[in-house]
Amino acid sequence: MTGTLIGVGTGPGDPELLTLKALRVLESADVVAHFAKRGRKGNARRTVEGLLKPSVVELPLDYPVTTEIDKAHADYIGAIQSFYAESAARVEDHLRAGRDVAVLSEGDPLFYGSYMHLHVRLASRYPARVIPGITAMSGCWSQAGLPIVQGDDILSILPGTLPEAELIRRLSDTEGFVIMKVGRNLAKIRRALAAAGKLTGAVYVERGTMDDTRTQDLADKADDEAPYFSLILGPGWQAKPQGEAA
Amino acid sequence: MTGTLIGVGTGPGDPELLTLKALRVLESADVVAHFAKRGRKGNARRTVEGLLKPSVVELPLDYPVTTEIDKAHADYIGAIQSFYAESAARVEDHLRAGRDVAVLSEGDPLFYGSYMHLHVRLASRYPARVIPGITAMSGCWSQAGLPIVQGDDILSILPGTLPEAELIRRLSDTEGFVIMKVGRNLAKIRRALAAAGKLTGAVYVERGTMDDTRTQDLADKADDEAPYFSLILGPGWQAKPQGEAA
Ligand SMILES: C[S@@+](CC[C@H](N)C(=O)[O-])C[C@H]1O[C@@H](n2cnc3c(N)ncnc32)[C@H](O)[C@@H]1O
Ligand SMILES: C[S@@+](CC[C@H](N)C(=O)[O-])C[C@H]1O[C@@H](n2cnc3c(N)ncnc32)[C@H](O)[C@@H]1O
Repeated sequence: MTGTLIGVGTGPGDPELLTLKALRVLESADVVAHFAKRGRKGNARRTVEGLLKPSVVELPLDYPVTTEIDKAHADYIGAIQSFYAESAARVEDHLRAGRDVAVLSEGDPLFYGSYMHLHVRLASRYPARVIPGITAMSGCWSQAGLPIVQGDDILSILPGTLPEAELIRRLSDTEGFVIMKVGRNLAKIRRALAAAGKLTGAVYVERGTMDDTRTQDLADKADDEAPYFSLILGPGWQAKPQGEAA
Repeated sequence: MTGTLIGVGTGPGDPELLTLKALRVLESADVVAHFAKRGRKGNARRTVEGLLKPSVVELPLDYPVTTEIDKAHADYIGAIQSFYAESAARVEDHLRAGRDVAVLSEGDPLFYGSYMHLHVRLASRYPARVIPGITAMSGCWSQAGLPIVQGDDILSILPGTLPEAELIRRLSDTEGFVIMKVGRNLAKIRRALAAAGKLTGAVYVERGTMDDTRTQDLADKADDEAPYFSLILGPGWQAKPQGEAA
């Protein structure tokens, strides 16, 4: 009997945003894997602090490279590919030995999550299931009390890593929007929003649902520094007649 | 002391996908409001069956109109506007009397949810907070085990109510996509996907995470009938080099 691979969404940070299903799996899991920067506890692992059983085997999967390196560079791609392959092999050892492996994933596992790299390598050969999580964007627009889309609104989810011209084009042609992966892309994103006429109304949320979270109008944010855990929300609602049914 | 308005996301259907925070609020709520078609228990209310306290006051908000009527028609817009205004007034009575009101919302409250119509009418005048929920799309792609977006992928969330030409244009110009509000729009959506070269790979999910759910490749679905609770997923992942980091 082989074990089951279980991608577990841990939500955006507030431990109360775990689902009942995730809690149940985590409380009984024999092996819990989690991605992180070397030597640090990742956000997902911090979220489940105190919930794992004392006998749990933890399998930290530490990224070998930082975001400092150009992601298009062959060295980076090679290093990260080997890392995912090795991580999958380490998880696979447990699965072959009949142990279920819960893989923590901040937010939702299959929405820009590292878990996907294990899933695509293992889910065709081992039993696998995925427990959805509250996405960072849901946590952020709920915290901000910001209706994001309604009726026939379109919602565009854009990585802040896109080229400036591409951001402008996309932001000009949508109702609601979410810009993920803000970090060092903030200055570019701000220019793109201004060019698309969407800077007013854009809301910046940093470390959403965590203890030290911060929400503000992006136009009021004085600097262009943003941490990794930040995103930008643009509500589509205003553009629509209030008569639209949900 | 006035009461607090609380939008509570109940997730896509599986009661185990409630968050701990939602559960806590629901178990202690004095008043629980929920939108539904007249005489029926809505999906959100079914999801929380057995969790509310015996003394709870339930406030069903029954839609006066069906989806049969043309939504652009002035009569429809008038009727639905009055309905939301009356619903807000009924909720407000409890808030003024100092009672917190939990408003159930399937999936996530601020993502195409009816709760928004109460929020925009009341949240500026009463304390309000929103508890995010697992969205239908997260529930569906998790159930299907379908990595939806990764790396620099764009995700476009499109209502199936959009005109066919608009669907074709948008589907041709995105990596991942989710089409909500399928129902009677399925034939049109299928044509648009074919025209955009995205029919192959599109996954149809009906009643995601519920007991009687069904997942299949849209290309294999024989007819063009779909229930209200259905959506279509298009993974963006394949388009990208596997070297992309999350
Ligand atoms: C690799 S993606 C992971 C997304 C995650 N799987 C989800 O479901 O939301 C990382 C990006 O998510 C966003 N993010 C994650 N957690 C966040 C939080 N608590 N507050 C704000 N943004 C967050 C940031 O934009 C960050 O760059
Ligand atoms: C008014 S929107 C509500 C969306 C919800 N607030 C959310 O967060 O997903 C209704 C649409 O959501 C989708 N939907 C809701 N629940 C679903 C489910 N369990 N399975 C598939 N689609 C669902 C359908 O496309 C439906 O037409």
